[in-house]
Amino acid sequence: MSILIKNVLVGGRVRNIYIEGNIIEAISEGSKEQVAEFVIDGSDKAAIPGLFNAHTHAAMTLLRGYADDMPLRKWLETKIWPVEGKLTEEDVYWGTKLACLEMIKSGTTFFNDMYWHWRGSAKAVAECGIRAALSAVFIDGFDEEKAKEQIIRNEALYKESKKQPERIIFALGPHAIYTVSESSLCWVRDFAEKHDLLVHIHLSETKTEVEDSIMRHGMRPVEYLNELDFLCSRTIACHCTHLSRNEMELLKKHNVKLVHNPVSNMKLAAGRQPYDELKRLGLYQNIALGTDGCASNNNLDMFEEMKIASLLHKSYSGDPTSMPAEEAFGLATSNAARAFRINAGEIAEGKLADVVLLNLKNVNLVPNHNLISNIVYSANGSCVDTVICDGEILMDERKVKGEEEIKEKAQEVAYEIVKQ
Amino acid sequence: MSILIKNVLVGGRVRNIYIEGNIIEAISEGSKEQVAEFVIDGSDKAAIPGLFNAHTHAAMTLLRGYADDMPLRKWLETKIWPVEGKLTEEDVYWGTKLACLEMIKSGTTFFNDMYWHWRGSAKAVAECGIRAALSAVFIDGFDEEKAKEQIIRNEALYKESKKQPERIIFALGPHAIYTVSESSLCWVRDFAEKHDLLVHIHLSETKTEVEDSIMRHGMRPVEYLNELDFLCSRTIACHCTHLSRNEMELLKKHNVKLVHNPVSNMKLAAGRQPYDELKRLGLYQNIALGTDGCASNNNLDMFEEMKIASLLHKSYSGDPTSMPAEEAFGLATSNAARAFRINAGEIAEGKLADVVLLNLKNVNLVPNHNLISNIVYSANGSCVDTVICDGEILMDERKVKGEEEIKEKAQEVAYEIVKQ
Repeated sequence: MSILIKNVLVGGRVRNIYIEGNIIEAISEGSKEQVAEFVIDGSDKAAIPGLFNAHTHAAMTLLRGYADDMPLRKWLETKIWPVEGKLTEEDVYWGTKLACLEMIKSGTTFFNDMYWHWRGSAKAVAECGIRAALSAVFIDGFDEEKAKEQIIRNEALYKESKKQPERIIFALGPHAIYTVSESSLCWVRDFAEKHDLLVHIHLSETKTEVEDSIMRHGMRPVEYLNELDFLCSRTIACHCTHLSRNEMELLKKHNVKLVHNPVSNMKLAAGRQPYDELKRLGLYQNIALGTDGCASNNNLDMFEEMKIASLLHKSYSGDPTSMPAEEAFGLATSNAARAFRINAGEIAEGKLADVVLLNLKNVNLVPNHNLISNIVYSANGSCVDTVICDGEILMDERKVKGEEEIKEKAQEVAYEIVKQ
Repeated sequence: MSILIKNVLVGGRVRNIYIEGNIIEAISEGSKEQVAEFVIDGSDKAAIPGLFNAHTHAAMTLLRGYADDMPLRKWLETKIWPVEGKLTEEDVYWGTKLACLEMIKSGTTFFNDMYWHWRGSAKAVAECGIRAALSAVFIDGFDEEKAKEQIIRNEALYKESKKQPERIIFALGPHAIYTVSESSLCWVRDFAEKHDLLVHIHLSETKTEVEDSIMRHGMRPVEYLNELDFLCSRTIACHCTHLSRNEMELLKKHNVKLVHNPVSNMKLAAGRQPYDELKRLGLYQNIALGTDGCASNNNLDMFEEMKIASLLHKSYSGDPTSMPAEEAFGLATSNAARAFRINAGEIAEGKLADVVLLNLKNVNLVPNHNLISNIVYSANGSCVDTVICDGEILMDERKVKGEEEIKEKAQEVAYEIVKQ
């Protein structure tokens, strides 16, 4: 398919964007007339790259609002885990469909997921047209039998994943150092290296995790993974709210990618990523941004996440110049594209056609003194008018195919799973 | 006019809401058939009270995104104040219209304003149908002549205000203790007492304000106002980010109303209201929530403000149970209604018909395990479908009368005022 977006604001100028297949073929200044199968009127719209949600558990949309305002441990043990234990592949399929719908409606074209029932998530992503890195939750609980099962399952899923559309990236998802044994972490390290896979892990999310690591291993979480030769440029380390100077330097040395989840960290009172310190160490380009799952956010709106990220660091540092709008925008676009090795994250010729059109007539974007400021500090997902991912139009004038069915089925499933 | 909202979710049950004039006359369980001039189908909708934005400078929508990520003083002196100095009444009129539009579109039916060119704001509010407490910025810069002018102006505006619709409440707006002389503060105190007026003031917004007060008056800002017998139940004290224990007790003793502006305080790195401490002192019901002006937020979305308020206190206290969803919702509804002495803030018989209908099919509200959680942690302003204020329908299926003209004119004005 070819798509022509006419007279759209790109990088401060009104231009035409021509998409052929899944690539942005040309960005021109109007006079050059292209012919395309599908023409979009870009007047009063701005084109920005599709946003990247760098850490979530998509199917947890099913648990949106199910339990909040509780101490972390009690929340997990009495609310989240019991329900998750009952989930089926079908449930995860519908929960992920709902998440994909929500992400498309708020301009996100890629997400990095870790959840149960990988096949359910993959089916949903394949159908919804969005881009994703999907990892199964790898937890062995330090049990050898379980470790074997997990390894066999991941090997099987890896093979299966090759039949999926290219938009779906298979990744490994060792949950965390306190749920996965050393030998399994080493298997993950080796399998990932052999097949050049991304490794998605929760790292230093809470103070308790750090204290446990010191008690168990005599060192902090990042130091422990360093000892296992686990850290590399394919490591996607999520949260990283409690880091020593030495740990930050290890993350830098191994070119580890970090995901910042400000809303989840605030809502669970887990801590705060030391953004300014990481930036001073030269790690800015390694940081991406994620919403975490809907049980701890409780939405998947990356516009909101950019704003709160910036506010959080301004507030804690006492410096209103901390994380300016441009930087927050970079976390959700170009930085993430680099981390996930995806040729997107900006609107430029030769890039993948993951394009979001904002409605400049949305009241939150009026006046338009500064588009990036409006995007980060004023917009929310509802400012998105059109979403193109991999050269396909997934949303047009805020309409997504099959939306009503997805919401109805997901809601049914959600009510069923919380019944006692 | 009479309005019947049929089959709408209110307080967890599906009911009918019957509005006669500007009052909610009846809330019934379906069987009782009312006849009304206007019938709204409430299926898949939930009725909540219109939200209260308890502190803003509405016309600053014109400066949305004009200057961000700067140190406070430089931001004010080189960007905000020079532009504000050039504003005309017509500019303020269009800026306030844009703000009213944005607030209506995000479910806010009342705002507490302090800005230049009172008549421009009042005209905009009168036309838009929203409810507001409007105060002129009272600054004398410790200059006797200016003080006299301000007093004459406020006396005149007070008289004029009686010709405005009852929806418009005239309030006094002494800007802050560092911009208004002691004698003017005493005039405000006496005039407000004589005419039973609300007094809208910035108080203890920054550390600098506290330090200056100690230097100038030998005491902290709240203590200084207490010395002047300024504090009472009609005082609307905004920000209050730097409070000593003694100051909190003075605020309690005089039943002062406090406004919390988390986004603005974070964005400007001004500080943080000690919410948990105030709550422990029994002041919860005295606290309302506001966005502040668009130059330091940069939107007027009270859904976003509720969420960020809760996240902020969870994060700083390290306690995920701090400011649960119900409390955040109360700040934006019933607490504010009490503070501004408005018979609204809940959906109940005999209350003013300030009613917002949420679209329960908006993806952010699916599933609906817990509506208040969804409102606070997942929704944004775009979840609002219908807005009724003072018994008038201001928005129906997200359409507001005159919307396009307001955006166009406000945008024109906004671009004009920032030209050098």
